[in-house]
Amino acid sequence: MAGSPRRAAGGRLLLPLLCLLFQGATAILFAVFVRYDHETDAALWHWGNHSNADNEFYFRYPSFQDVHAMVFVGFGFLMAFLQRYGFSSVGFTFLLAALALQWSTLVQGFLHSFHDSHIHVGVESMINADFCAGAVLISFGAVLGKTGPAQLLLMALLEVALFGINEFVLLTLLGVKDAGGSMTIHTFGAYFGLALSRVLYRPQLEKSKHRLSSVYHSDLFAMIGTIFLWIFWPSFNSAPTTLGDGQHRTALNTYYSLTASTLSTFALSALVGGDGRLDMVHIQNAALAGGVVVGTSSEMMLTPFGALAAGFLAGTVSTLGYKFFTPFLESKFKVQDTCGVHNLHGMPGVLGALLGALVAALATHEAYGDGLQSVFPLIAEVRRSATSQAVYQLFGLFITLMFAIVGGSLGGLLLKLPFLDAPPESKCYEDQLYWEVPGEHEDEAQGPLRVEEPDTQA
Amino acid sequence: MAGSPRRAAGGRLLLPLLCLLFQGATAILFAVFVRYDHETDAALWHWGNHSNADNEFYFRYPSFQDVHAMVFVGFGFLMAFLQRYGFSSVGFTFLLAALALQWSTLVQGFLHSFHDSHIHVGVESMINADFCAGAVLISFGAVLGKTGPAQLLLMALLEVALFGINEFVLLTLLGVKDAGGSMTIHTFGAYFGLALSRVLYRPQLEKSKHRLSSVYHSDLFAMIGTIFLWIFWPSFNSAPTTLGDGQHRTALNTYYSLTASTLSTFALSALVGGDGRLDMVHIQNAALAGGVVVGTSSEMMLTPFGALAAGFLAGTVSTLGYKFFTPFLESKFKVQDTCGVHNLHGMPGVLGALLGALVAALATHEAYGDGLQSVFPLIAEVRRSATSQAVYQLFGLFITLMFAIVGGSLGGLLLKLPFLDAPPESKCYEDQLYWEVPGEHEDEAQGPLRVEEPDTQA
Amino acid sequence: MAGSPRRAAGGRLLLPLLCLLFQGATAILFAVFVRYDHETDAALWHWGNHSNADNEFYFRYPSFQDVHAMVFVGFGFLMAFLQRYGFSSVGFTFLLAALALQWSTLVQGFLHSFHDSHIHVGVESMINADFCAGAVLISFGAVLGKTGPAQLLLMALLEVALFGINEFVLLTLLGVKDAGGSMTIHTFGAYFGLALSRVLYRPQLEKSKHRLSSVYHSDLFAMIGTIFLWIFWPSFNSAPTTLGDGQHRTALNTYYSLTASTLSTFALSALVGGDGRLDMVHIQNAALAGGVVVGTSSEMMLTPFGALAAGFLAGTVSTLGYKFFTPFLESKFKVQDTCGVHNLHGMPGVLGALLGALVAALATHEAYGDGLQSVFPLIAEVRRSATSQAVYQLFGLFITLMFAIVGGSLGGLLLKLPFLDAPPESKCYEDQLYWEVPGEHEDEAQGPLRVEEPDTQA
Repeated sequence: MAGSPRRAAGGRLLLPLLCLLFQGATAILFAVFVRYDHETDAALWHWGNHSNADNEFYFRYPSFQDVHAMVFVGFGFLMAFLQRYGFSSVGFTFLLAALALQWSTLVQGFLHSFHDSHIHVGVESMINADFCAGAVLISFGAVLGKTGPAQLLLMALLEVALFGINEFVLLTLLGVKDAGGSMTIHTFGAYFGLALSRVLYRPQLEKSKHRLSSVYHSDLFAMIGTIFLWIFWPSFNSAPTTLGDGQHRTALNTYYSLTASTLSTFALSALVGGDGRLDMVHIQNAALAGGVVVGTSSEMMLTPFGALAAGFLAGTVSTLGYKFFTPFLESKFKVQDTCGVHNLHGMPGVLGALLGALVAALATHEAYGDGLQSVFPLIAEVRRSATSQAVYQLFGLFITLMFAIVGGSLGGLLLKLPFLDAPPESKCYEDQLYWEVPGEHEDEAQGPLRVEEPDTQA
Repeated sequence: MAGSPRRAAGGRLLLPLLCLLFQGATAILFAVFVRYDHETDAALWHWGNHSNADNEFYFRYPSFQDVHAMVFVGFGFLMAFLQRYGFSSVGFTFLLAALALQWSTLVQGFLHSFHDSHIHVGVESMINADFCAGAVLISFGAVLGKTGPAQLLLMALLEVALFGINEFVLLTLLGVKDAGGSMTIHTFGAYFGLALSRVLYRPQLEKSKHRLSSVYHSDLFAMIGTIFLWIFWPSFNSAPTTLGDGQHRTALNTYYSLTASTLSTFALSALVGGDGRLDMVHIQNAALAGGVVVGTSSEMMLTPFGALAAGFLAGTVSTLGYKFFTPFLESKFKVQDTCGVHNLHGMPGVLGALLGALVAALATHEAYGDGLQSVFPLIAEVRRSATSQAVYQLFGLFITLMFAIVGGSLGGLLLKLPFLDAPPESKCYEDQLYWEVPGEHEDEAQGPLRVEEPDTQA
Repeated sequence: MAGSPRRAAGGRLLLPLLCLLFQGATAILFAVFVRYDHETDAALWHWGNHSNADNEFYFRYPSFQDVHAMVFVGFGFLMAFLQRYGFSSVGFTFLLAALALQWSTLVQGFLHSFHDSHIHVGVESMINADFCAGAVLISFGAVLGKTGPAQLLLMALLEVALFGINEFVLLTLLGVKDAGGSMTIHTFGAYFGLALSRVLYRPQLEKSKHRLSSVYHSDLFAMIGTIFLWIFWPSFNSAPTTLGDGQHRTALNTYYSLTASTLSTFALSALVGGDGRLDMVHIQNAALAGGVVVGTSSEMMLTPFGALAAGFLAGTVSTLGYKFFTPFLESKFKVQDTCGVHNLHGMPGVLGALLGALVAALATHEAYGDGLQSVFPLIAEVRRSATSQAVYQLFGLFITLMFAIVGGSLGGLLLKLPFLDAPPESKCYEDQLYWEVPGEHEDEAQGPLRVEEPDTQA
C-alpha cells in the first residue's frame, strides 16, 4: 500500500456514522411507535377465542421465507456477476436490505397499520418490508459499481420513504391492485434507479470498462441468484394476496409465466447471439421477466394460457432489451444501467401494469363468482365498474412513473453531495475501494492486492 | 475467432426454432385444455363452503417449493462439477426443466386430471410436473457434456411423454405405490438416460477426457447442488403422499435414510480411496442414495431402523458403483455415464423398488390400523392381499425398466439425426460450443477465449 | 505422489471403521428403541379423532426445513472461507451433522421422549436433533483445520451426549426457557469447542499461517453460508416454541435483531478497519450475532425495540471481538479459534442468556395475559416468581458453561489419543490430507497436486 495516501478521516467515518445515526434514529422510533400486533402479542392473541392454527403466521410465513431468500440470496448473488465487485454486490445488498427492513417497517407502518398511536407489526409487515427492500435493490442494480455504500444508504433512505408513499397512494387511495408489485416494486424501483443513474451520469466510465464484465466463476455465482429468484417468485407474488384460492392461483400463474419467459429467453438469446451462442447475461436476467410481468395480474383470473403468453412476451422483450436497448440507453439518454434493470424490471414492470389493467377490464361476476370480493372488492360492491378499475390501474402506473422519476432525480442530486464516497471513474466496479480484498490465488493471498485510492469526485 | 468457420445458419437457428415451436404448441394446448382446478379458481373455490385453511395450497406448497429448489438448484449445481461445463450444466438444467414443467402439465393432465374436456391444475400438478422434470434431469446427467441443447430438448419431449405413460400405468392401472418415485422417477430417468447414452456411444471420447474432471471451485459449486438435494429430499418424497401421518412419516424416514447413506458413503469412500482419502465424486453423489432408496417405501411403515438400514445399503452400493462399476459399464457395455446416474439413481432406484415390494408384502392391519386405507387402499378394501400388492410392485419395476430402456433407445436414435447439435468428440464437456464464455481471470476477461467450431457429427 | 510414503493401514482404516462402528451401534439402538410417535404412526394417528390439519407436521415442518438448511448449507459454507479447506469445511460439516442427527435422536430421545420403553420420534425430534448438530458444528468452527475427521467424529460422540444432558438439566430439571438456544446451543457449542481447542493448543501453528486466509472466491462461498444462516434464523429460534403467537413473535423479534446486528457490524467494521475498509470476516460472522443474542428472549415479550437494541449490541461486541479479542485469546489464553466462534457464538450467547434472564425478570401477567402459561408456565401456575425464574435462567447459564468447559477439556484429552488423524502443524487448513484434490485450473486438473503426508502427531 506504499504510495497510497490514506483517506481523509471524514471519508473513513462517513459509513460508520451514517449506520449509527440511522440505527439510533430507528431504534428510538421503534421504542415510541412499534408494537406487536394482535397475532404476535402474547396477551392480545390469547385474549381472543381462536385456535393457534388460525394465526396468520401459518398462512404466510413459508412464503415470507421464500421472499426473504429472494431479497438476500437472489438479488445479492445475481449482482455478483461482475469480476471484481462480488463483495460489494453481496455485501451492500445485505447492508441496504437490512436498513430498508427497519426503515420501511416505520414508513409502511405509519401509512398502513397505525392505530391507537402505534404501528402494529407481524408477518405481513415483514413481507411488506422485504418487498420495499426489493425495490431498493432493483435501484441498486442500476447504479451498481458506481456508488459508494454511504451514497447507497442515502438512496435507500429516500427511496423507502417514496416507495411507501407511492404504495399508499396506489393501494389505499386509488384502490389499485398490485399484489406482486409490477408497479409498486419493479416499475418504481427500476425507474427510480434509472433516473438516479441519469443524474449521476459519468462521461468517462470507459476507464472502468475492463472491469464491467464477468469471469467464468462470477457468472456461476450470479446463476445462484438467478435460480433462487426464479424458483421462489411464485411465493413473491402470492405472499400478500388473499388467502385460499388467491394465494394458490397467484403462485400457479407465476410458475407458468416463468417457464415461458425462460423458453423465450433461450430462443431469443441464441437467435441474436454471435454465431448462435447463448449469452449468460440474458439467461441470468431475462428468464426472470416472467415473474415481473405477472406481478399485478397473477392474482386475477389470468388463466394458465394468459400466464404463458405474458411470460413469453416478457422474456422476449427483456432479451431484446439487453441486446439492443441498453447500449442505446447509454448513448442517447446518458443512462448507464449496470445490471440492465430497465430490461428486467422496467419494461416488464410496465408491461405487467398494462396487463393488469387489461385483465381487470375483463373481470366479470361470472368468471370470479363470490371470489370477486377478494380480488376486486370495489367491483364486487358495485362501487366501480371493471372498466373503471382498469383506468385506475393505468393511473396507478402513471403515478408510479412520476414518483419514480422525480424521486430518482432528487436522489441523484442528493448523491452528488461532494463529501460522499463515490468511486472515481477509473475505479468503478472495484471492491478494493471499500473492502479488504484477498488475492485470487493461494500464492497471492498472503498480502492484499495493490490498493489505490478513491477520489471524492462524484 | 479468426479461422473458425461460422456455423451454418441451420445450426444456429435450430435451438431458437425448437424453443419457439414448442412454446407455441404448448401455449395453444394450454389455451384449449388447461383450466384452474377448484382450489385455484376464484368462482369454484368460493362456491363451496370451506375455510381458506382447507385449501390444498397450505398442505403442499412448502413441500413444493423444496422440490422446486431441488430440481433447479440441486440438479443444476450438482452437474456443475465439470471444469468447463458449468454454464451448460446450470443453464440447460434451467431450459430442460422449464420445458418439462409445461409439457408434463399437459401429459400428466391428460392422463390424471382430465375431466369435462379440460385439464385441471393446482399445486398437485405443480409437484407432479417438477417430479417429471427431475426424471429428465437424471437422464441429462447420463449424457452430460455429450449432447447439444437442441438434442436435449428432443430428449425431453420424448421422455416427458413416456414418463407420464409409465407413471399412469403404474399408479393408476396397476395400483402400485411409489410416492417418492424410486421407480417412476429414479429408475425410469436413469435407465432411459443410460439406454440413450448407449445408443449415442462415442468410441473416441478419450479426446475430451482432459475436460472430464473437476477443478477445486467447480467441486464446491457441485456441493451446493448436493446439499440442497440432501436437505430437501424429505420434502421430495413426502410432497405427494396422503396428508397427516403420511407426509409426516415419509419425511421422517427419508431424513434418517439420508443420514445413514452419508455415513456409509464416507466410510466406503475412504476405504476404497487412494491412501484412505475421500473422493468428492462419492460425497457429492452417493451420500444422496438414501433419498432414492426409500422413494417407494418411506410412506409405508418402514420403521426408523428400516430407514437407516436402507440408507446404509444404498450409500454402500452407490459408492462401490462409482469406484468399480462405472468403468466396467463403459468398457464392457459401451455406456458412457457422465454423472454416474447408474450409481445414484439406477441401482438405488431398483433397490428402492425391491424394498417397497418387501415392505408392502409385510403390511398388516395391525401395523397400519385405519391408516391402511390411505397407504394401501386396495389392501384395506380387501381387493388385494399384501403379497399380491408386492407382486404388483415388482411388476411395476419391470414395466418401468422396459419403458425406460426401450424409450431411451428410441431417444438415442432420434438424437442421432444428423442436423442436430451434437458436439464433436474432441469438444465434449465444453461450454464454448453453446455459450459466450468469459475468461477465467481478470486479465483474460476482456476478450472471449479462443473458440472452435462444433461439427455436426453425432 | 512419488516420494510420498503411504499412510499406515491403521491410519487409513480409522475413519471407515469409526463410521461403520458408529452406524452399526445406532442402527441396533434404533431397532430396539426408536418408534414413530402418534403423529407419524399410521395406526396411532388414525386411531384418534382429528383432522389431518392438526398434525404437528404442518406447524413445524417448514421451520424444520429452514433449520436443516442452516445446519448443512449455512454452517458448511460459512466455514468454506479458507482457501484450501473448502472440501473439508463442507464435507466434514456434512459427515458430523449426519452423525449428530442419529446420535442425538437417541440421546435426546432417552431424556425427553422415552415412554413405554421406547423413544418416540416426529418432527420435533428432527428439529431438536438438528439443533444439537448445530452445537457440534459451532465447536467444529473453533478447531477447523486443525483436526482430522476421525477426531471430529469422536468429538461429536462426546459432545452430543453432553449437549443432551445439559439441555435436559436446563429445560426439564430447572425449568429454564431457551427456545433458540442462546445457552444450550451457542454458549455450549462455543465454550466446548474453545476448551477443546485449548487442550489441543499447537505452539507451532505459525507454520500453517499462510493457509489461514481466504481467497476472493472462497469469501463468496462463505457468504452463501452467511446469508442462508441470516435469512433462516427467525425459523431457527421459532421452530421449537409454542404454537400461535409464540412462533410468530419469536420470528419477528429475531428478524429485527438481525437487521440491527447487520448495521452495527458494518459500522464497526468500517470504523476499526484499515483506512475505513470493511472486513469480510466481520460481515460473514458478526452480522449474525443478532440471531444468537435473542435465542433465549425472542419468544418472550422482548418488544421490537428490545430486539433492535439487543442485535445492535451483539453485532458491536462480536465485531470488536474479531478485531481485538481473538488475537488476545490466542496469545494470552492459548486458545486458537479458527472461525472466531467466541465472537459469534460465545459472547453473544452469554449476552443472550443474560438478556433472557432480564426479560424473564420483567415478566408480568399484564404483559403476557393468558399467554403467560405458554411462555412461563411455572410463573403462570404461581410456582415461581418472575425474579425466581430469572435466577434459574442465570443458573442455567452457569451450568452450561461448566458442562461446556469441562466437557470440552475432556474432549481435548480424548482427541489427543496418538492413533488419531490430527494433521501435522505444517499441514493444517489443508484439504489434501483427507481428500483427493483436483487442481485449481484446467491445465493442472489432469493430475492431483503434490501430496504430502500427515504425521500422526497430535
